[in-house]
Formats: sequence, structure tokens, C-alpha cells
Amino acid sequence: MYAILCPLRIAVLLFPAFTALDVFGPLGVLNVLALNHSMTLSLLSTNMNPISIDRNIIDGVYEGNPDRESHYFTQYVLPTHTLDDAPEADVIIVPGGGGTRNISATQPHVDWLKTQVNDPALSYMMTVCTGASLLARTGEIAGRNATTNKAAFNWVKSVEYADEVNWIPKARWVVDGHVWTSSGVSAGTDMTLGWVEHMYGKEEKERIRIGMEWNALEQEDDPFAEIMGLV
Amino acid sequence: MYAILCPLRIAVLLFPAFTALDVFGPLGVLNVLALNHSMTLSLLSTNMNPISIDRNIIDGVYEGNPDRESHYFTQYVLPTHTLDDAPEADVIIVPGGGGTRNISATQPHVDWLKTQVNDPALSYMMTVCTGASLLARTGEIAGRNATTNKAAFNWVKSVEYADEVNWIPKARWVVDGHVWTSSGVSAGTDMTLGWVEHMYGKEEKERIRIGMEWNALEQEDDPFAEIMGLV
Repeated sequence: MYAILCPLRIAVLLFPAFTALDVFGPLGVLNVLALNHSMTLSLLSTNMNPISIDRNIIDGVYEGNPDRESHYFTQYVLPTHTLDDAPEADVIIVPGGGGTRNISATQPHVDWLKTQVNDPALSYMMTVCTGASLLARTGEIAGRNATTNKAAFNWVKSVEYADEVNWIPKARWVVDGHVWTSSGVSAGTDMTLGWVEHMYGKEEKERIRIGMEWNALEQEDDPFAEIMGLV
Repeated sequence: MYAILCPLRIAVLLFPAFTALDVFGPLGVLNVLALNHSMTLSLLSTNMNPISIDRNIIDGVYEGNPDRESHYFTQYVLPTHTLDDAPEADVIIVPGGGGTRNISATQPHVDWLKTQVNDPALSYMMTVCTGASLLARTGEIAGRNATTNKAAFNWVKSVEYADEVNWIPKARWVVDGHVWTSSGVSAGTDMTLGWVEHMYGKEEKERIRIGMEWNALEQEDDPFAEIMGLV
């Protein structure tokens, strides 16, 4: 088992206005997993500035509509590496969020992902929510099955190269080879728990799930596809 | 409605090794709520240094057991204010996590909370997971009903002044006056959604829950009390 011999290297791709739970749900799982398994984590960004969560605040400038949103309702996390300086990873996790709608701001992320998706050194490429739009924009998942946020489903299907992807409307998450894509926000945590089961077995997954008091949905359980009128 | 006339002021109390999801689950809810309601957020700490998530890294020194844990599996968030400089809040949220076990490191947080719990200016005091231990240690919730993480239930019951509290083993969350306490980790997000329903109605809660694709448990639904042998 590779992961037992070497530290498993996780990388999370960050951009302004990523959705909090898309990152900290999966990391909530992995932070517990890392107590029992040797793992490293990189948080990647275009530069080393603090990154705003759920709001587009780029270089200190708020990009939202001040009539609609509170200016001051934001949180910042610190990246650990720039994309130019990213260490090799076994697993890459791409969150979604409002920031994925900013096509120009996320182009460097898409360009970097394009070099990674089908690199044989990468074991797992995972997206949460509208993070799938960044993956689709690489043009590197043509012909693959994938899913994404159910409320933003049609928007994701409209991004460049997305028409080459086989989008699955009803699935909590989809596995196609090394590419794992989840439905919206909370689904990323279910997918990560599913990945723990795949890698380390059901007992380890249940240990972590119970510790988190997480009310899991299984891969085929997706009530939100129906709620959003996709099936 | 007060919250419509004035910005609702949320404060989250942070300390090293808080659990990621205890904070970013509730904030995941509130970040969406704040798109439609005027709200401000403070992230409070003893000082303005970045705060480590899920690992005790204090002033750059790792306080865990290097034989057991990866050194490098951490994330940092930025506080916005120190406790000495904390703005008035309508709602205070206290997360749990491994850091609550560090009694001396969290004493300043307990001392600050003690001045806030029963201040008539505070509308809601909320704890997630073992954050209830910090609240109990203030000695200011004597006679109240409360709950906490089910795996750490007996530890929380053992902290100073905890014997004055009426701990409820089976509840996703407990409301006693202005004091709201949730069970472990993910339960904090259900409690926050419950609080949104209480404040803004069921439609707003459902809108946010569906947007997050969150598989909610209701207040009385607590499968983890049984799993952990508490009932």
C-alpha cells in the first residue's frame, strides 16, 4: 500500500470566493485521517496573499455589489504555496463557489490544472460543487462522467469544453477513473468519506464519520437533483 | 425586527486547534444568509496571529505528538480582532475541537466569555461540539440544559463548573433561553440552520439548506447518542 510507505500528498486549489464548506468539509475528514496516516497538505493559490472565503475580495478590493452584500462578512485563509511553486501531489481537490464564475481570475488555476489532470503521477483528481467547471475548462476530461452543484448545473454545462463532458444529473458524487466529482457543497464531504472508504476501508470511514457526527448520503442518494428539477 | 433595521453582529471565538467544520459549517450557512441580510462578522482571538485549524500550533511551535501526527497537515485562518478589542456582538459562536482540551491556552477565552454570556446586550450564545466546555467553565450557565459532542460527552462533563449544567445526552442541539448548544461538529450546521428558521422562517432556512445540498438532521434527531452508548 503506497499510502502507508510514503506520506500521501494532498493539494487543495484555492481562489477568492471559494465556498467555505467545499474546502473545510473534505479537510474536516482529512484532518482526522491524518492523525492515523502520514499525509502532507498544500493550499495552492496564485500568490501568497490571504484568500477570501465566499466573497470576491482580491488585493483588498471587494468585487461584490455593496447594495446587496455586507462588505465585512468575510474570512481569510493562508495559502502554503503558489501554483508556480506547487509541490507534487497525489490528490488534488478543487472546491467550487462564487469565485469560479470569475473566468479571468481563475484562468491561472485552469492553466495549472490542465498540466495536472492526466499527469500519470497524479492518483486522484477531485472537484466539489462548481469546482467541476474549472476541471471542465481544462478540456482534459472529454468523454468522462462527472457531476456538479445541482442549482448551478446548467451554468457549469455552459463553460468552455463542458459540452465534451457527460454530466450526470442525479448522483451525490461520480467516479470516472481517477476523476472524482461531487455535487454541491456538502456533497464534497460525502465524496471524501467515500474516498476514505475506497482507500482505507469502511471501518476507517465510519470511525471518522461518527467522530464528525456527519449525516452521510451515499453515492446514489441525491435528493437535490429532483428538488432542482434536473430529473 | 431588529435584524432588519441594524446589521446583525456575529462573533466567532477562535483558538488554536479549533475544528474546521465547527466554524465553517455555521459560517457556510451565515455566508449565504449575509447575501440577503445586513450582517457583520468578527473572528476573535487572543492576538492577531494566524490561527491553526485542527492542530495545536502556537507561535509556530507544534504541540502534538510527531510520532502520531503529520507535522504539516494544517491550515491557518486570520482573526479580525483580539478579545481586548472585540466589537459588541448580537450572536457569539464558540467552536469545539482538540484545542478546548488545552485548559491554560483557552483560559483567556473563558474569561472573556464569562463577561459576555449573561450580558443583556447579547442575543444568542451558541456553542458547537466541545465548545460547550468553554461555556461551562465560565460558571455562567448553571442550571441550564445543554449538549455537546457525543464522543467527548464525559470529558465535557468533567470540566470545572460542568456539574452545574444539565447535560442532555440525546439531542442534535439544545435551546435554553438565549443559550444554544449543539452536539458534535456537523451538528453545529444543523443548529445554525435551525437558528435561521427561528430568526427568518422556514423558507429562508430551506433556501440555504438546499443551496448547500445539506442533509439536515432536526433538533430531536440524534443517532450519535445511541452509537456512542449515551442512551
